[in-house]
Amino acid sequence: MTGRLIGAIEAGGTKFVLAGAREDGSVIAETRIATRQPEECFREMVAFFRHVAHAHGAISAFGVASFGPIDIDPASADYGRFTTTPKPGWAGARFHDALGEFGGPIIVDTDVNGAALGEWALGAGQGCRTLAYTTVGTGIGTGVVQDGHSLAGFSHFESGHIPVTHDPARDPFPGRCPYHGDCLEGLASGPAIEERWGASLSKLASPAEQIDLIAGYLAQLAANLVLLHMPDRLVFGGGVMKAPGLIEALRLATERRLGGYVQAPQLDPGLERYIVTPGLGDEAGITGAVLLGKRALG
Amino acid sequence: MTGRLIGAIEAGGTKFVLAGAREDGSVIAETRIATRQPEECFREMVAFFRHVAHAHGAISAFGVASFGPIDIDPASADYGRFTTTPKPGWAGARFHDALGEFGGPIIVDTDVNGAALGEWALGAGQGCRTLAYTTVGTGIGTGVVQDGHSLAGFSHFESGHIPVTHDPARDPFPGRCPYHGDCLEGLASGPAIEERWGASLSKLASPAEQIDLIAGYLAQLAANLVLLHMPDRLVFGGGVMKAPGLIEALRLATERRLGGYVQAPQLDPGLERYIVTPGLGDEAGITGAVLLGKRALG
Repeated sequence: MTGRLIGAIEAGGTKFVLAGAREDGSVIAETRIATRQPEECFREMVAFFRHVAHAHGAISAFGVASFGPIDIDPASADYGRFTTTPKPGWAGARFHDALGEFGGPIIVDTDVNGAALGEWALGAGQGCRTLAYTTVGTGIGTGVVQDGHSLAGFSHFESGHIPVTHDPARDPFPGRCPYHGDCLEGLASGPAIEERWGASLSKLASPAEQIDLIAGYLAQLAANLVLLHMPDRLVFGGGVMKAPGLIEALRLATERRLGGYVQAPQLDPGLERYIVTPGLGDEAGITGAVLLGKRALG
Repeated sequence: MTGRLIGAIEAGGTKFVLAGAREDGSVIAETRIATRQPEECFREMVAFFRHVAHAHGAISAFGVASFGPIDIDPASADYGRFTTTPKPGWAGARFHDALGEFGGPIIVDTDVNGAALGEWALGAGQGCRTLAYTTVGTGIGTGVVQDGHSLAGFSHFESGHIPVTHDPARDPFPGRCPYHGDCLEGLASGPAIEERWGASLSKLASPAEQIDLIAGYLAQLAANLVLLHMPDRLVFGGGVMKAPGLIEALRLATERRLGGYVQAPQLDPGLERYIVTPGLGDEAGITGAVLLGKRALG
């Protein structure tokens, strides 16, 4: 008994990771394709899953962890459809249309919710009831998983756009968010860092001051997540977080922001077990997509 | 058939509202007592419910909506116990001890979660799936109710202490939070307003500029609530919100903060139906406590 087949999709702004997996989570085929226009991208995606089905048998369900904004409300007529995404061509595209020929149930959540689920189940969030996973890369976003389900209101969260304290005397960069200028994403995303200093944090010669500045912005999100969600742990992943020293600076800045107000065993002194990098590394998203597909199997 | 009896307690930092109610929610007795030391206060509370029981029959369950910090995890051994509250004498006091003689089940939640539940069920949040209720008074706090249940992580939320942008050139007041100085509560609570300007917003002669300043701080919480919870509506209550013009200024400042990024039918232009005052006025908390008691009945 090898179990039913799951199709898993981690849809990122730059690339799609596609996987065919067994019901037990074991991956039997995996590929990456570039995120171009949806027609082209969806065609390649469908071709891959046809190939998987041909080689291994019918695909019974799909799990999708996607960039957004995207409708993730299963009760909505537009479930699985990109809404107001600024990514050219993608607004209106819908996973359910592209995957319809396979006939199985489809669960769609955001990329960060998928990664949060992956980390909660199999990564750095194991044992937590409530886990917040934040990615800091091209964009900034947070997924919060509680008891295995991602939290949402009328839409998924948009933590990248929270207002943050920004001192132009220390950081004259005006921010690059087209909506808010110097919101968190406008100041601390990968593109904001490269536009400001001409290189990523990892490539700057002596980046101590820059690391502290970025950590100070991210700490404001960390503090907000604590105060507005009280998660058992915060995972910070994404390309920017790979800069040596950033996670340590983030712990320090967050502890300073919280000022000792929140007393709980979860928040150990130094926050070394509270603010952590992903246990699954770059595999958190696709792992979450497989788990979503597993859930879709029912 | 008059239904079983519920004991309801809205425990505030200044006063306790106590009510005896029928299963259908109708209040049959109500009183207010000052919040002094817990021994004294709990003695008066118990005396009131003994009186209710004597006059109307046994009390079958209790609902408590209380100030905090307080343990609201039903699975915890300290459920219903005040934890690190700075209120002298109250740390360690526990509702379950005080109400033990009545023998019924007890549900304890925070005052703002109780008010959020009251507004969700019977006030300005009717028809919403997710409602955020914020009180701006002696302290600032937010309860978020989704499908009739308050959200929490390892503890209840602490929205009053979020970091906010504070320009000392415009507002030289350093803030009065003993933990953070100029966090939201340190700048925009009732005591911060009175310490800064010698009077409440309602009593200042021409408060337009002061209203704008406070609205600007509260709008940062409103924006954070949108981006990190995506509620269908935000209710803002509490003494400070009674200042004429403040809710209008808050709508304006929040719309400016969000910068059109979040597009949804919930966020009508002008936010007049999105950011509202409590439908139950000052009765939201005790209404929520009655609903918690009703839930405790099972």
